[in-house]
Amino acid sequence: MSKFTFYERISRAFRDNPQLSRVLIVSTISGGGLVAFSSASPFPVAHADSPAHGSPKKKVVVLGTGWAATSFLKNLKSSSYEVEVVSPRNYFAFTPLLPSVTNGTVDARSIVEPIRNIVNKRGPRCEFREAECYKIDAAKKKVYCKSTQVSNLGGKEEFSIDYDYLIIAVGARSNTFNTPGVEENCHFLKEVEDAQRIRRNVIDCFERASLPSVSDDEKRRILHFVVVGGGPTGVEFAAELHDFAIEDLAELYPSVKDLVKITLLEAGDHILNMFDKRITAFAEEKFQRDNIHVKTGSMVVKVSEKDISTKERSTGQTVSLPYGMVVWSTGIGTRPFVMEFMKQMGQTNRRVLATDEWLRVEGSDSIYAVGDCATINQRKVMEDIAVIFDKADKSKSGKLNITDAKEVVTDICERYPQVELYLKKKKMKNIVDLLKNAQGDGRKHLDIEVFKSALGEVDSQMKNLPATAQVAAQQGQYLADCFNRMEECEKNPEGPLRFRGSGRHRFHPFRYKHFGQFAPLGGEQAAAQLPGDWVSIGRSTQWLWYSVYASKQVSWRTRFLVVTDWGKRFIFGRDSSGI
Amino acid sequence: MSKFTFYERISRAFRDNPQLSRVLIVSTISGGGLVAFSSASPFPVAHADSPAHGSPKKKVVVLGTGWAATSFLKNLKSSSYEVEVVSPRNYFAFTPLLPSVTNGTVDARSIVEPIRNIVNKRGPRCEFREAECYKIDAAKKKVYCKSTQVSNLGGKEEFSIDYDYLIIAVGARSNTFNTPGVEENCHFLKEVEDAQRIRRNVIDCFERASLPSVSDDEKRRILHFVVVGGGPTGVEFAAELHDFAIEDLAELYPSVKDLVKITLLEAGDHILNMFDKRITAFAEEKFQRDNIHVKTGSMVVKVSEKDISTKERSTGQTVSLPYGMVVWSTGIGTRPFVMEFMKQMGQTNRRVLATDEWLRVEGSDSIYAVGDCATINQRKVMEDIAVIFDKADKSKSGKLNITDAKEVVTDICERYPQVELYLKKKKMKNIVDLLKNAQGDGRKHLDIEVFKSALGEVDSQMKNLPATAQVAAQQGQYLADCFNRMEECEKNPEGPLRFRGSGRHRFHPFRYKHFGQFAPLGGEQAAAQLPGDWVSIGRSTQWLWYSVYASKQVSWRTRFLVVTDWGKRFIFGRDSSGI
Repeated sequence: MSKFTFYERISRAFRDNPQLSRVLIVSTISGGGLVAFSSASPFPVAHADSPAHGSPKKKVVVLGTGWAATSFLKNLKSSSYEVEVVSPRNYFAFTPLLPSVTNGTVDARSIVEPIRNIVNKRGPRCEFREAECYKIDAAKKKVYCKSTQVSNLGGKEEFSIDYDYLIIAVGARSNTFNTPGVEENCHFLKEVEDAQRIRRNVIDCFERASLPSVSDDEKRRILHFVVVGGGPTGVEFAAELHDFAIEDLAELYPSVKDLVKITLLEAGDHILNMFDKRITAFAEEKFQRDNIHVKTGSMVVKVSEKDISTKERSTGQTVSLPYGMVVWSTGIGTRPFVMEFMKQMGQTNRRVLATDEWLRVEGSDSIYAVGDCATINQRKVMEDIAVIFDKADKSKSGKLNITDAKEVVTDICERYPQVELYLKKKKMKNIVDLLKNAQGDGRKHLDIEVFKSALGEVDSQMKNLPATAQVAAQQGQYLADCFNRMEECEKNPEGPLRFRGSGRHRFHPFRYKHFGQFAPLGGEQAAAQLPGDWVSIGRSTQWLWYSVYASKQVSWRTRFLVVTDWGKRFIFGRDSSGI
Repeated sequence: MSKFTFYERISRAFRDNPQLSRVLIVSTISGGGLVAFSSASPFPVAHADSPAHGSPKKKVVVLGTGWAATSFLKNLKSSSYEVEVVSPRNYFAFTPLLPSVTNGTVDARSIVEPIRNIVNKRGPRCEFREAECYKIDAAKKKVYCKSTQVSNLGGKEEFSIDYDYLIIAVGARSNTFNTPGVEENCHFLKEVEDAQRIRRNVIDCFERASLPSVSDDEKRRILHFVVVGGGPTGVEFAAELHDFAIEDLAELYPSVKDLVKITLLEAGDHILNMFDKRITAFAEEKFQRDNIHVKTGSMVVKVSEKDISTKERSTGQTVSLPYGMVVWSTGIGTRPFVMEFMKQMGQTNRRVLATDEWLRVEGSDSIYAVGDCATINQRKVMEDIAVIFDKADKSKSGKLNITDAKEVVTDICERYPQVELYLKKKKMKNIVDLLKNAQGDGRKHLDIEVFKSALGEVDSQMKNLPATAQVAAQQGQYLADCFNRMEECEKNPEGPLRFRGSGRHRFHPFRYKHFGQFAPLGGEQAAAQLPGDWVSIGRSTQWLWYSVYASKQVSWRTRFLVVTDWGKRFIFGRDSSGI
């Protein structure tokens, strides 16, 4: 084409210069009555390091395009790598909004961003392959992949990729706990496709119940929606489904609206049991008012085509509930190929892939694992207590004075995060107080026994990190930071002292910072547990939720789309076509 | 819930009062830089007739939720009916935008509106059943339906519905002309799901071609997109695909962008052959510039998994093209259950269900057929010429004078639309001129032979109406008007004289009014053929297209969504995630 026209020039200007579209969106959004607040720039201004001349670039293979992988890719700046991403999904999905997608509040395409758009354009060269990894060979430093497409494009293409560093960020799968019938009859809520399927199924149920030949009993069964699992996802889904049914579907399906029933099954004593008691109580009360049946102490033992059987803890009996649709949202499990890999790495007796505090897979120097597919196997202080004492006792006298101890205190705290948590719990300022406490008055020196007893309780504070987007994103960012400064820190290690061995660790270990967690409860109400045990419940929390979720979007595009979707829902209600 | 909060009150105000949201949208849209112009109110202000007291309401069953059915339902005002709609799709889709959906310019959900929202709320009571009609029993006045769902909801529910009036508006299916392999290997573009599937498949092809193990030849094959059929849909799809590939995908898939090839196969001599020659020439030239390969005189004879075979008219040879994806968009065919029904009605030797000029299925008084599933079997003047003459010749003298003829002229024109077209072609004002012409000078009377010769050529102007949304919508509206005034016109018939029989026809026959047709050609260019043979080509036509398509949306909701989608595309480009 010869010349760019006005239209093309404007359109190109927008797309080449994201700042411009940002300005337009903010003005459009404010025109529409909503302002999206962004806490952090989503376009990190990165300046690539100068590539290491002479030495060939290291090949980094990333498996996955979820929170951890995407956060890693966005933050990787060093151009001394060549990156290859392998994932069956060519997009990043903002998973916390999946429950909203199930009910049409937010459109599926508003929460996804093609991974090729996300990759840090000023960072290293990055290739994406839409395929699934099915085997890792740690000895040969190779991953084996196959394409997931099954069309005329020619069966399942297979290939292998060599790596220098491998980053496993494949997430987890839903855990059925081997309950019979779950795989066949339940919906899960992990992928965007799941959410779309659930949405169609809800509408299907309403349509089915509107057919003239269906008996009233059968209508009641079809319109009985069961949610298994009282965690944040299950609770949010139940709440959204209730709003959808009451606010939108009741109007369109007046003849069946009174037959709708929503049941939430939870094996424990309470729903939202990882939250503060006040939130749990508020949620349970609200659900009771909304006529969402919460059944606690109820464990699902079998799901058949039309009935779900539960064992009631209170009575010990097995109860059978006819249902129209079940959404299964309890716990996560390890993917089969990760299980295989764990055997290879000698982690046979573990349920989840274990890494050290630097997110390196135990048993390997070049493989990292981040997000839901891995767990950090924290080192116990007690395992190392002798070498710690030895390191602190410079004079090798077998006795430690407080001044000696002070020198290793920071390193201990950094190497063993549980120490800090313990001090916090005991309301002590630092480890010196702890030692002084154990030492008793008058004595100037600590021997190994006193040292042991002082730190004896510390390991009780070890906790696994929750499987949340927040943890995964922080791990991805941490790992990218490490990779960005790999060479630099090789020369000047910045981590804590190596108690077993000499010198320091290259990097600070990963430390998770909790920014709080939301539980939307429907009817424009939400609960939030914020850092410092601050609990916030109600309508204002829902608005906080809107702001935070808008600001956390991965791109300005999805931010605009999500905010527009909320606006559309506000004006037009949720869409209830079968699309 | 005790009291409505501010939020709920505002939200309800919007949804109960569509005027309000209209104001908001118009202001929002104008804020965003686009003004959607609506030529006709999409909410017809209908005042229901008072129901016929005493007499039970007549049951109208409508099959389908496409253009014809939806137009009928929107315009039906008389409350003397009870309406039941049966369709496998619980929504109306704005099908002219399907090519835009295939490339993510417009979202699938932006062009659909749940049928329950569209039904004229002030009109008769209306029930919707999501099911497929599989049999019509005209003798028992019954339709047999089955649900299309196949989940745990219990097999395929079956039921039957009695009717007083049946309206068949089920549309057509794609016509494969029994070409082997088409059903299995080609994509069609008739339903929203088709468009979504095509979109995913295009992205799949690009992903597949980006895998490291795929050879260059294979990449070329995978990225060869073939469109069969040079009609408006095929041409628009090819153009949209080209824009999508050049403007959006080329940036994301730089390594394979040069391997993309688009071929448009047309069996005739030219693409867009129902349009003016200037439009055809412009389109063919533009496609050549854009590197879209147009192959005319090329008939597809077989489609295998990876190759498409065509017979070239110029050489008579069969050529085989390796392809990655084929979209089949040539012609339409009759649905199997309509075929069955045609046999029942004695229409065995026809390809399409035939109706009379009042859209009644031939052979039945209570069954109507509208839209693509039917065709109007126009009555030939020559078949009736004797009775027409007889009716005109009041004195029964066997000779007609011009004054006698004048009385029936209006009725003839109305009853036989081909007469008007013929006059137009001959540039005559009215039929009297035609008769005078045939009569020759000097003579005062016409005999039957002169009369016959005058009208002898008229039937050559009979043409089937095109299978477009415009025709279907006008037929639906016409039929609703008839139903609204059924009782009134029973008493005071308003139609033309019955030449065979006595009295007048109840209604005016259906008359199609052509408002023009668009052919978007990509790159913000479009062609339009407007009434009066006015041809408009270029960028301004594309903007006309935007305005017309925005104004023709079925609801303010979809209008807002479609315009927003265009805006989003302008700012962010098309979405290219696999969702």
